[in-house]
Amino acid sequence: MSRITQRRRVSHLAAGDATQRPETLAVEEPLEIRLGGAPLTVTMRTPGSDIELAQGFLLTEGIIAAREDVRTARYCAHPDGTNTYNVLDVTPAPHVRPPDVDVTRNFYTTSSCGICGKASLEAVRLASRYSPGDDPVRVSAAALTAMPDRLRAAQDVFASTGGLHAAALFDFNDGGAMAVVREDIGRHNAVDKVIGWALEHHRIPLAGTVLLVSGRASFELTQKAVMAGIPVLAALSAPSSLAVDLATQSGLTLVAFLRGESMNVYSRADRVIGCSGGLP
Amino acid sequence: MSRITQRRRVSHLAAGDATQRPETLAVEEPLEIRLGGAPLTVTMRTPGSDIELAQGFLLTEGIIAAREDVRTARYCAHPDGTNTYNVLDVTPAPHVRPPDVDVTRNFYTTSSCGICGKASLEAVRLASRYSPGDDPVRVSAAALTAMPDRLRAAQDVFASTGGLHAAALFDFNDGGAMAVVREDIGRHNAVDKVIGWALEHHRIPLAGTVLLVSGRASFELTQKAVMAGIPVLAALSAPSSLAVDLATQSGLTLVAFLRGESMNVYSRADRVIGCSGGLP
Repeated sequence: MSRITQRRRVSHLAAGDATQRPETLAVEEPLEIRLGGAPLTVTMRTPGSDIELAQGFLLTEGIIAAREDVRTARYCAHPDGTNTYNVLDVTPAPHVRPPDVDVTRNFYTTSSCGICGKASLEAVRLASRYSPGDDPVRVSAAALTAMPDRLRAAQDVFASTGGLHAAALFDFNDGGAMAVVREDIGRHNAVDKVIGWALEHHRIPLAGTVLLVSGRASFELTQKAVMAGIPVLAALSAPSSLAVDLATQSGLTLVAFLRGESMNVYSRADRVIGCSGGLP
Repeated sequence: MSRITQRRRVSHLAAGDATQRPETLAVEEPLEIRLGGAPLTVTMRTPGSDIELAQGFLLTEGIIAAREDVRTARYCAHPDGTNTYNVLDVTPAPHVRPPDVDVTRNFYTTSSCGICGKASLEAVRLASRYSPGDDPVRVSAAALTAMPDRLRAAQDVFASTGGLHAAALFDFNDGGAMAVVREDIGRHNAVDKVIGWALEHHRIPLAGTVLLVSGRASFELTQKAVMAGIPVLAALSAPSSLAVDLATQSGLTLVAFLRGESMNVYSRADRVIGCSGGLP
């Protein structure tokens, strides 16, 4: 049985008829991420690309910023000597400063102004080492509207389970090629896996790229894009108010409701060819 | 301006034409939940029903179990004397035992078997004070298939923003009446608000009810249903493997892919009238 999907028998009801049939489910399992042996967080994820996931999480939380910041990443052994594959320890390079607050509680909670949207934005500004606002990339509307179909064609598991979020990176240093696709039961995990892939390939900051996500654009996903130096975030569904605020402040181009031939551009519309001359 | 939605000007592109127009966004703001003055967690949520949200979170994490376990719940004052509405302090009754692990790191991480799906299930079994498996409620397939339209009709904000998850409680002690609907940018928050509402109304455990969620059924949402004593969880989209495992272990009826006239029943199908005689 795959670690990513499982088969189960279910009762299927349709128009009054009940039948038994097998269904494919997306697997959900906890992953504990440790930093230098110390437990840092637990995320419920779909197994696979776990080292990317851990490294992407550490990068988007501001703990590491490049491949050189990681010495090793490996699964921990179970007390009986076997690997559990659900505990992953990342040993940082000696120059990496340990996080001074519990990142699982969200680092912006320590802001002096208390807790509010503005403090959250300010914390990302202070933590980010990259400036997507300076990125000169421009992308045509046609390239953007083609992306959802390209993502769907590349999604392995979604078609069989209906249960996974996806994230993909399109590289405009390479003609808009789809560089990587990752799927996960958690949309933040799918994005962390993509960013962790980029870190493994020495591709951080991700200048000249578009990050496409299969769902909504929340503050958290926008923060991850900013932390990785991605200049354009595109979402199939709606953005939140704080996602738009962060994109505007960071100079990130935020595209949402990317469906068929249409889209909304919430910030830095100058990067979308065909949207020129317009706010915002 | 509403605290729940905001208006922004966006560039709308459709079939090559760019226009400027106002769009309504769902508001996302951080809420810090404190317990007896000590910071416990921060969640990104849509403002509104914050006291329900905090109490629902505390209940589904196993810290409180009934209205009597809460002495007060109030917004904290900002250093300048005003309320921030983003920090909420819950003072428990004296008999409530403080959590002995950091619940924000997920309590099941301390399991002796390491970390795995089985340990996660076991932790819920140990933490839950209610047994949805014993609930004798039965619900017709027709009542279930009617729920998504009833939820959509009651959703205030989604229609304008496309950006909110919803959760609703249907009460079969009262002919299947829709008792409460809550919306939030985070689906776990929408469920916590519904359960917090029930706690406020002395309705815990929620025997004889169906919890409907607008998205997928994850382990986390299934855990929340079990902790509140809800016997039936219905989701419009897919369940995860661990959600099905937890539902099976807990005797919860898990319905998913509830669309049009059809649905899948993953556990305790005997509660769905029209599904009788069948596994699972």
